[in-house]
Amino acid sequence: MDNFRFLCATEVIFGKDSENQVGTYTKQYANRVLLHYGGGSIKRTGLYDRVMKSLKEADIEVFELGGVQPNPRLGLVKEGIELCRREEIEFILAVGGGSVIDSAKAIALGVCYDGDVWDFFSGKALPEETLGVGVVLTLPAAGSETSISTVITNEDGWYKRGLNHELNRPLFAIMNPELTYTLPPEQTANGVADMMAHIMERYFTTTKDVDLTDRLCEATLKTIIRNARIVKDNPQDYAARAELMLAGSLAHNGLLSVGRVGDWSSHQIEHELSAIYDVAHGAGLAVIYPAWMKYVYKNDLPRFAQFAHRVWNVELNLENLEETALEGIRQLELFFKEIGLPTTLTELGIDDQRLEEMANKCKMTNGDSLGVVMKLTPKDVLNIYKLAL
Amino acid sequence: MDNFRFLCATEVIFGKDSENQVGTYTKQYANRVLLHYGGGSIKRTGLYDRVMKSLKEADIEVFELGGVQPNPRLGLVKEGIELCRREEIEFILAVGGGSVIDSAKAIALGVCYDGDVWDFFSGKALPEETLGVGVVLTLPAAGSETSISTVITNEDGWYKRGLNHELNRPLFAIMNPELTYTLPPEQTANGVADMMAHIMERYFTTTKDVDLTDRLCEATLKTIIRNARIVKDNPQDYAARAELMLAGSLAHNGLLSVGRVGDWSSHQIEHELSAIYDVAHGAGLAVIYPAWMKYVYKNDLPRFAQFAHRVWNVELNLENLEETALEGIRQLELFFKEIGLPTTLTELGIDDQRLEEMANKCKMTNGDSLGVVMKLTPKDVLNIYKLAL
Repeated sequence: MDNFRFLCATEVIFGKDSENQVGTYTKQYANRVLLHYGGGSIKRTGLYDRVMKSLKEADIEVFELGGVQPNPRLGLVKEGIELCRREEIEFILAVGGGSVIDSAKAIALGVCYDGDVWDFFSGKALPEETLGVGVVLTLPAAGSETSISTVITNEDGWYKRGLNHELNRPLFAIMNPELTYTLPPEQTANGVADMMAHIMERYFTTTKDVDLTDRLCEATLKTIIRNARIVKDNPQDYAARAELMLAGSLAHNGLLSVGRVGDWSSHQIEHELSAIYDVAHGAGLAVIYPAWMKYVYKNDLPRFAQFAHRVWNVELNLENLEETALEGIRQLELFFKEIGLPTTLTELGIDDQRLEEMANKCKMTNGDSLGVVMKLTPKDVLNIYKLAL
Repeated sequence: MDNFRFLCATEVIFGKDSENQVGTYTKQYANRVLLHYGGGSIKRTGLYDRVMKSLKEADIEVFELGGVQPNPRLGLVKEGIELCRREEIEFILAVGGGSVIDSAKAIALGVCYDGDVWDFFSGKALPEETLGVGVVLTLPAAGSETSISTVITNEDGWYKRGLNHELNRPLFAIMNPELTYTLPPEQTANGVADMMAHIMERYFTTTKDVDLTDRLCEATLKTIIRNARIVKDNPQDYAARAELMLAGSLAHNGLLSVGRVGDWSSHQIEHELSAIYDVAHGAGLAVIYPAWMKYVYKNDLPRFAQFAHRVWNVELNLENLEETALEGIRQLELFFKEIGLPTTLTELGIDDQRLEEMANKCKMTNGDSLGVVMKLTPKDVLNIYKLAL
């Protein structure tokens, strides 16, 4: 186990009707608030009205910026920054899923920064202050509601880049599982792939002696697998929706990776897909993750066999760990298919035309390579794209 | 899953040499600090010198109060409150295990309260402010370093009473597993029993649909069991010491019981033992917990069988869950014995003389009963003491 510091400073308010407390929680931080949201589904479901009512009751002046798209765009972030400055807004309330929250985080940082907010994503500058973000979560997936991450897509060149910083941690996250009853099944499934990837990217590590966090990862994965199956058959099962919502947050708040270095190659490799083809991040991950596993598993057979055995109940073949490891990868793919996810680029409508372009564009986070289980070069990334076809 | 709010606001600084950062962390909160500790082992090990050096380097004025005993006493708490007021101390730094931290928490609350600090423990008043506490942990056991709990013993009548309040959460907790290398084996074992009890008291619940937290509890228990065995044979195994230290904190910071109601009867029943016979809390729990289980398991056979199966790898007998459940309890007892813990009152040198007195004194937390798996009356508590003889 490596040395570490950890504090997840987001207050979680979880359960039925919890969105009705949003005014009280927001009022702790501000009187002038930007309500940030997506394509309008919150208006159809009535959530918008309930949130507005609670904010008004708390005597909060609300400004609005809707229109966040999946793979949230830098353009809208800049529009939000302008609006916040013009109206002297003090706090951003994100009502939505990961895209809305990520966009809110970027706006909150950008308002407090004199330069171009993209500087934070291109690595030119480090954030020092934020306006602060609160969340009403509608989609368990990205884990952005309690995480230090935000991912933004720059339309100028279609670069999709992330920024991890403690300032990105929302101040509160309101989570009512009932709000997820009406999600389209493919959004639920994409969310499941995203949260599982967040855990697996922590799980596959080169750090030794990580017993507790291994087991916490396995516990969370098993919970997601079980409850995703329940939700597929019964979208209004409160208990299962609650488990997924809680698991999605735990998957990415950092606790599961204290004292260990994860391998985030798959997320990086997927970002290129989402940036160019605008596929849903979760669907992209369902395709890329198993391909990544098949490409790298030989570098750590015991860990991939442990994954198969502990998460998927695959019987260990101690004389042939490779067999066990491969069966674990196969189980993961079967599960993704079972809940309706694609597992090939072809299913996403992507052919081999731009694989090289994506591989060359993929950010090498270690300088000239990517990842820790296997240090991937752009050529390896290309091979993984090809394996995923 | 029940609705819940959760925020563990303690910053954890974990790993080798981390105590050398104590000055920096303390300085964030205060310039005049009470250094609170126990019987002087921190002087023998050199920890005292390292802490003082770091505090001096941060230009902090240090006042000292040592002498905290196991089952920390109200008398010393009051002495600490006086000292803090007299010297206008701004913050308490607890260097030690649960007793020292609990004592520090009580002092920190008492300084900010005009009445008798025992009012908080007798239920006469609720705390509204605290001076704030930081921790350098030397004994993984009570989990007090990140918990909302403090337990104090009133020498006037030997009442041992706890107070759970969010204000009790330390502001930071510095944890270096190396500091636990020199613990006497029985202290390590007592700590293991305490942290396991914290998890089991959350695990045995009447709340339905608690999939993720069940699995997180099981993961943490399995980690403790495995690493306690390693540490027994090799007290200086850093990896195993680190796992125990991290697990002890997670066991009691509240995450493992979000959305569920635990059954804390055993802690309450043990408190009477510790108060009258001054036995180590962990040793008392190792005796009481299995007795409690034997007394109540029939009230929830599936859960006790799940515990046996998932935590102890006991094969499920689906036609006779009782057999499985009992085997789980037996495995727990065997494990306690294996790591050198007592499992009977007799081994603690306690006979049947004062069992009725303790049973009648035991605080009925539900008004006229105790616990949720089975609502225990004082007569049930007496039966449990007898089962433990």
